Amino acid sequence: MFYHRKELQFEAMPEKPNPVFAKMLQEVIGGQYGEMSVAMQYLFQGWNTRGNERYKDLLMDTGTEELGHIEMLATMVARLLDGAPIDEQEKAMKDPAIGAIMSGMNPHHAIVTGLGAGPENSAGVPWSGGYIVASGNILADMRANLNAESQGRLQVARLYEMTDDPGVKKMLSFLLARDTMHQNQWIAAIKDLEAKEGVVTPSTVTKDMEATEFSYKLYNFSEGEGSSQLEWMDGVTPDGAAEFQYESTPKAYGEIPVLNPAPKYMHNTLPNQDK
Amino acid sequence: MFYHRKELQFEAMPEKPNPVFAKMLQEVIGGQYGEMSVAMQYLFQGWNTRGNERYKDLLMDTGTEELGHIEMLATMVARLLDGAPIDEQEKAMKDPAIGAIMSGMNPHHAIVTGLGAGPENSAGVPWSGGYIVASGNILADMRANLNAESQGRLQVARLYEMTDDPGVKKMLSFLLARDTMHQNQWIAAIKDLEAKEGVVTPSTVTKDMEATEFSYKLYNFSEGEGSSQLEWMDGVTPDGAAEFQYESTPKAYGEIPVLNPAPKYMHNTLPNQDK
Amino acid sequence: MFYHRKELQFEAMPEKPNPVFAKMLQEVIGGQYGEMSVAMQYLFQGWNTRGNERYKDLLMDTGTEELGHIEMLATMVARLLDGAPIDEQEKAMKDPAIGAIMSGMNPHHAIVTGLGAGPENSAGVPWSGGYIVASGNILADMRANLNAESQGRLQVARLYEMTDDPGVKKMLSFLLARDTMHQNQWIAAIKDLEAKEGVVTPSTVTKDMEATEFSYKLYNFSEGEGSSQLEWMDGVTPDGAAEFQYESTPKAYGEIPVLNPAPKYMHNTLPNQDK
Amino acid sequence: MFYHRKELQFEAMPEKPNPVFAKMLQEVIGGQYGEMSVAMQYLFQGWNTRGNERYKDLLMDTGTEELGHIEMLATMVARLLDGAPIDEQEKAMKDPAIGAIMSGMNPHHAIVTGLGAGPENSAGVPWSGGYIVASGNILADMRANLNAESQGRLQVARLYEMTDDPGVKKMLSFLLARDTMHQNQWIAAIKDLEAKEGVVTPSTVTKDMEATEFSYKLYNFSEGEGSSQLEWMDGVTPDGAAEFQYESTPKAYGEIPVLNPAPKYMHNTLPNQDK
Amino acid sequence: MFYHRKELQFEAMPEKPNPVFAKMLQEVIGGQYGEMSVAMQYLFQGWNTRGNERYKDLLMDTGTEELGHIEMLATMVARLLDGAPIDEQEKAMKDPAIGAIMSGMNPHHAIVTGLGAGPENSAGVPWSGGYIVASGNILADMRANLNAESQGRLQVARLYEMTDDPGVKKMLSFLLARDTMHQNQWIAAIKDLEAKEGVVTPSTVTKDMEATEFSYKLYNFSEGEGSSQLEWMDGVTPDGAAEFQYESTPKAYGEIPVLNPAPKYMHNTLPNQDK
Amino acid sequence: MFYHRKELQFEAMPEKPNPVFAKMLQEVIGGQYGEMSVAMQYLFQGWNTRGNERYKDLLMDTGTEELGHIEMLATMVARLLDGAPIDEQEKAMKDPAIGAIMSGMNPHHAIVTGLGAGPENSAGVPWSGGYIVASGNILADMRANLNAESQGRLQVARLYEMTDDPGVKKMLSFLLARDTMHQNQWIAAIKDLEAKEGVVTPSTVTKDMEATEFSYKLYNFSEGEGSSQLEWMDGVTPDGAAEFQYESTPKAYGEIPVLNPAPKYMHNTLPNQDK
Repeated sequence: MFYHRKELQFEAMPEKPNPVFAKMLQEVIGGQYGEMSVAMQYLFQGWNTRGNERYKDLLMDTGTEELGHIEMLATMVARLLDGAPIDEQEKAMKDPAIGAIMSGMNPHHAIVTGLGAGPENSAGVPWSGGYIVASGNILADMRANLNAESQGRLQVARLYEMTDDPGVKKMLSFLLARDTMHQNQWIAAIKDLEAKEGVVTPSTVTKDMEATEFSYKLYNFSEGEGSSQLEWMDGVTPDGAAEFQYESTPKAYGEIPVLNPAPKYMHNTLPNQDK
Repeated sequence: MFYHRKELQFEAMPEKPNPVFAKMLQEVIGGQYGEMSVAMQYLFQGWNTRGNERYKDLLMDTGTEELGHIEMLATMVARLLDGAPIDEQEKAMKDPAIGAIMSGMNPHHAIVTGLGAGPENSAGVPWSGGYIVASGNILADMRANLNAESQGRLQVARLYEMTDDPGVKKMLSFLLARDTMHQNQWIAAIKDLEAKEGVVTPSTVTKDMEATEFSYKLYNFSEGEGSSQLEWMDGVTPDGAAEFQYESTPKAYGEIPVLNPAPKYMHNTLPNQDK
Repeated sequence: MFYHRKELQFEAMPEKPNPVFAKMLQEVIGGQYGEMSVAMQYLFQGWNTRGNERYKDLLMDTGTEELGHIEMLATMVARLLDGAPIDEQEKAMKDPAIGAIMSGMNPHHAIVTGLGAGPENSAGVPWSGGYIVASGNILADMRANLNAESQGRLQVARLYEMTDDPGVKKMLSFLLARDTMHQNQWIAAIKDLEAKEGVVTPSTVTKDMEATEFSYKLYNFSEGEGSSQLEWMDGVTPDGAAEFQYESTPKAYGEIPVLNPAPKYMHNTLPNQDK
Repeated sequence: MFYHRKELQFEAMPEKPNPVFAKMLQEVIGGQYGEMSVAMQYLFQGWNTRGNERYKDLLMDTGTEELGHIEMLATMVARLLDGAPIDEQEKAMKDPAIGAIMSGMNPHHAIVTGLGAGPENSAGVPWSGGYIVASGNILADMRANLNAESQGRLQVARLYEMTDDPGVKKMLSFLLARDTMHQNQWIAAIKDLEAKEGVVTPSTVTKDMEATEFSYKLYNFSEGEGSSQLEWMDGVTPDGAAEFQYESTPKAYGEIPVLNPAPKYMHNTLPNQDK
Repeated sequence: MFYHRKELQFEAMPEKPNPVFAKMLQEVIGGQYGEMSVAMQYLFQGWNTRGNERYKDLLMDTGTEELGHIEMLATMVARLLDGAPIDEQEKAMKDPAIGAIMSGMNPHHAIVTGLGAGPENSAGVPWSGGYIVASGNILADMRANLNAESQGRLQVARLYEMTDDPGVKKMLSFLLARDTMHQNQWIAAIKDLEAKEGVVTPSTVTKDMEATEFSYKLYNFSEGEGSSQLEWMDGVTPDGAAEFQYESTPKAYGEIPVLNPAPKYMHNTLPNQDK
Repeated sequence: MFYHRKELQFEAMPEKPNPVFAKMLQEVIGGQYGEMSVAMQYLFQGWNTRGNERYKDLLMDTGTEELGHIEMLATMVARLLDGAPIDEQEKAMKDPAIGAIMSGMNPHHAIVTGLGAGPENSAGVPWSGGYIVASGNILADMRANLNAESQGRLQVARLYEMTDDPGVKKMLSFLLARDTMHQNQWIAAIKDLEAKEGVVTPSTVTKDMEATEFSYKLYNFSEGEGSSQLEWMDGVTPDGAAEFQYESTPKAYGEIPVLNPAPKYMHNTLPNQDK
């Protein structure tokens, strides 16, 4: 059950409007690695947790915080859109500066949302539930989370560089900091779980389930041997079970597959029409 | 530039057909973490690499291998669909065993692909480019890759448990092994990059860009203090820069946001219609 | 800024597992009119509100409640999936009852989420930001909200009829009640706003913007005059501005459109290739 | 069965081309609330109607008209794209006016459709069947229809403000008028049905199905009591069954959910890995 | 402008309900090659036609007919769903025949559409504007149309085999016939246009635009020389300009690409982190 | 199984960067008819082939080549993005030339991919598995392939006209040539298969399955008789079985459909609520 408090977690006040940057900011609201993704990913992971209540609490803490980040960013987008000059476009386009703004805006901000944020990315593509994962395996999911915070912080850093508005920069510097924390916490959790379970997940795969003779070989499927020269290739694998092996010319272990003809009622092409 | 060899990388021969399991297997072909995802993710990452040619080679090696995994799985799906009893459904439905098969099949396998695999997941949702990422930041991307191999291996393990066909199990045991290797290699790469750059990515964010007073606090946004009791909470953060801090009652640092009214030409609701 | 409390808003405890019904319930989590939709719709509407703070508060109250409904439903789905018999499918399929379960489950519940809920509908299609709207016009949005609660309550009523598990029915009876409240509150808000602005939205369209001679005619584009016999057709329009008119044989007011040829550099078909 | 007449329902002739506005207009062709949505929504509702033939006729009348609106808009888009200066972009970009046009166009209009309209919105996102609903409950669907016409008319009004081309304005003034009619007719239908069935839909939910003690309370999930001050909060609910109640501090009626561990064959994280 | 007539173009009356087959039929309503696709594809092509009015008329004739096919199929789906036994599922699942029906139905038919058709395919994935094309080049588009009618007729043939309901078969036999006509007409149009323009489209590409030394070679990128043994490989190309050439070992004409490092403000990985 | 060679199949070196054109080029990477589509379409068709190994080889040859085309285009996009001026946008926007670039870029190229290509089209919409088909019927699929190469070559020709960069033009001239070859080869294959099977596919539909009285009539559903004047309308149908017939006023062969009321547990509107 959730409660809402009206104050923002952090300030979201630009120095002045900028409708083109408002479009850009949508990426970290409704993009693949935006705040909708991390909020929903952590919450679904929390709700699906079976029997590890401390990690569940951590997920609920962080997912709930991210809901507040969507709010901050949505507020910032609305303010960046304040008074956007979108009427009488033809006249406006004669002024190149305004022309560039109108060309560079997300049309949804003008036509659909009435100068507000929407659940979509910087190209206007709607957020998709297909972006997130909650698998029931906490180590796997913590890696998903570390990935999300890594991509997310990278995107925030790029947005920071793209603007010189001090108000926008201030809010982004807060988000960079929170992403630093979230990377740290997921890394710590991963280390903790890896220490208990081993680094290869799921750790509950028994040896008889796995064709272990294929578990430590790097196959050189792209000509050139650069990958073999990576320093760590010359050592023990992170799971401690073997040394990395390198196969310069990967073999095929299977045969040339030939499929049976389809039954007649499928209306597939009959065999031997190519002769 | 790519070349194709007709032999499969590994055998893909079920003992007998099973159209319901063919539907399930689609998850690891065209699902969020299926082979299409890892193939395309690694290849786009490789193509976008700027100036780290050994890692580019590693990405191209692995992405190219994954193309062969789609092939293996597609072959397996086609064989599991051999002779599926899909004609004269009404008659068939009277036999409960056949009824369950017909109810449990992916209808696309019968109607669209003619007993072949398709680029979609186990629910029949088409593969989406929105599943993958290639960011230009190799550490961030390696974490995406480790995530993909972790979720992917978990899904393969579950599929392994769901079948008792020795041929299917054999192929899945090969995929489990390759995912072990790929987890190991991405972990090794991550360690290598973290040693050079630090664990928080992107490492090129300078201190003046980040509001570091917020970089190490866990905010307790979900009541209950379970997360504070995680063992690692009581120590140094993985980036070595601080100790984890815990804020039991998170404060708001922002104010209650009030937005300006929209210009009249937006036809938004005028202010004070709620009084 | 949001806070989370661990208790559910209402109980979510089925009498016994039912993996097929777990699939059905996904519709009201991640479907077009599920709880993700209403939560996100109300929150985005709230965040985008410009100058009607009481309605903003109402939206935030309700959107925040809906987040808790996702949680309740996700918990119920997880419990309906408890111990689902998904291993060794082939054996299982020989028992028709189990066969029907396995055929009727959402494969994602087994392979992807590990017996948990996901952000998708009853067919396994991921939730999309394209389902929702926040337009900046509160009357328009309240109609979107009433629509969502009407479709949503209808779906919950159907799900209620589909089960005989008393625990599931109990939770659904709570959701039916909350949807009753939400329909009532949006209807009251709509009446309030209509009283102030008029029933046709946006009310700020001036008469010179609209070709009012076309504003009150029902055109009989489908042969048969049933629509003209609807009782209300014989009276004043709800906006009070006119009487409904009925045009039995709709006229064309435009001409046959003929488009100019494309410039040569478009490589469209040249004119007169059809002669 | 449908017939087509070559004349447009109304004129669609701009004074001069404007490729950027052509992009904007796509919103009301293939956006969430564009003409494709209303056409398909009304037609599917009509086709699914079971035993209310006058409403079915009304739906078919209106849905068929909307098909003609797609046509009008597609014609307008094609004319706004006439002779768009899309060759030799580099040269063109040196002229800022042309640069802004090229930057502001939908690239699909140049590359994919050859200066014609496409089934997509103003951001280039393809139309989705997920936008529409046909539920079999006419009151619920009429609310969906009123919502669609409200959002749609709002978008047309905004587009009207964005242009000063008299030909475009003329066509949009016609669409504003038709949306006025369609709002009026759906409102009248809603009133008619509400008078017969009551305002809460579906009206066939019996009292024993609903936990009516929760049917009339507004829960204050967002701090601040603005919503309680809305005038209508102090009165009878629109369904006439009760008075609105306000709960300032919403209680939890459920317990803290704890889920059972997953079976071993799911390879979820085992319990107590967080200690 | 469109008109609707209430009669169906052809009968759509099954002998008895069959909810599982109703799910299957959705493929030819809202699938990639269903009637929504051909209707919208032909209509958009017609609307975008610039100066070939006879072909435009042909497209409008056929697109308008296809609208009536959606109607026929939607009617059939509604009747196949008549009285589907979807209440009290748990009880029902004990009867294996009913269990198989409930497992095999599209849940949307029960929960969302109220026993009616929806704009989605047989897996429940919503129809997408991304399925269709209208390019402005009529020869290219006629090939798209022939493709659509070929895939569509194949799917109808498969559905015909899957049922033994004489009423369903009758309707499908009509659709098979119409697809025969539509294949014939698009083939005739293609021949007509190829005779005027040549077979390679767009025919307006001038020789200086094309690297013609690469225009007639089959590159053997998949080992094994089966393709070279296709009879037609040993002859003149269909455009009459050359003979097919076969290159057994395809050469690379480009170099190994090395990309420049990204500017610092992109926060990509710096060069040489792999050493 | 695939192998990768580092050299590009052809050069991909622009004379100078052009971030707006980089956005445009995405259409032929990840658009409906881009290289991802043809690669995946041909490979899935090859993998699904049952018993026509020469055509399978042809499909694998061509699909594998197309993988190399994605690579070429991705490389070109990366180079067109070299040093894109995306920092400190506000300053930049004051220079109209830079303003137009920033407005015209795909924001993903800056924020998400770090100056690299992504799996999406020119509007930023992710590639979808719903674009492609592999049906098991080779004639049908060859028509899909010819369609793809026709639309694809048209798009490349348009892109060629849009640039004056000699390096970009050179690469596009290579792609035009390869598309010429691929159109030729699919046309030859189609002719070959049509000669063996007949032109109407699937050819295995027996006469008793088809209502042949409807197989050769053009119905004039769009007023005006232009289509009847197409020259080929006056002759034998391409399948040689009949002459084209033209029905000026298409009849309805079905009746007005009236559906049964839904069972009460569906909560649909009861019959006769419209009276």
